Amino acid sequence: MPTDHLSTTFAALADPTRRAILARLALGETSVSELAKPFDISGPAITKHLKVLEGAGLITRGREAQWRPCKLEPQALKGVDEWLDRYRKLWEERFDRLDDYLRELQSKKKNNNDDQDK
Amino acid sequence: MPTDHLSTTFAALADPTRRAILARLALGETSVSELAKPFDISGPAITKHLKVLEGAGLITRGREAQWRPCKLEPQALKGVDEWLDRYRKLWEERFDRLDDYLRELQSKKKNNNDDQDK
Repeated sequence: MPTDHLSTTFAALADPTRRAILARLALGETSVSELAKPFDISGPAITKHLKVLEGAGLITRGREAQWRPCKLEPQALKGVDEWLDRYRKLWEERFDRLDDYLRELQSKKKNNNDDQDK
Repeated sequence: MPTDHLSTTFAALADPTRRAILARLALGETSVSELAKPFDISGPAITKHLKVLEGAGLITRGREAQWRPCKLEPQALKGVDEWLDRYRKLWEERFDRLDDYLRELQSKKKNNNDDQDK
């Protein structure tokens, strides 16, 4: 069971329904019943997903008795972004090297074509 | 059980030992026994973690029979970064609003102090 905050966040994001809920909430806060509409799952299942997202601090729920709107808390994703940051440089270097290699291939191909044209 | 690729990646990252393994591999490829050293867990437990990371495409393992070095595949994190991108704007806006609020508070405090100095 994950206990540290970042693990809890990653575990909450490891589900397509929960990510779809976040995508919907990025458009604005809404009720649980409205959130549940596009999904072919039960009310309790949606509630369970919301609890996981709430536990990770990714959403909060209003305190109104009748209508407890769900709200995205995007700043909870900043920890993921900061963790990712140390790896960003590594994959960018990897893509740069791939770019260089493709350019080299293209240049060789062009030279070959030029030689054939002579 | 997560089945889509992004869910598999997030699930693989939802563990502090697995993230520590990635952090070590960011320094360069190494053997399983070398990787296991800082962790107070069994060889089979490390192997299980490596299988999860390998399944998510986050690491690859060499084909040498005796020494199968583990290697980080940082580009596997690009999907996470792309997913995060749509939320980045939202939390930046949230922090900008907080900045504005703090500046406003500071300016009010300064004005109060100036009034007291008169």
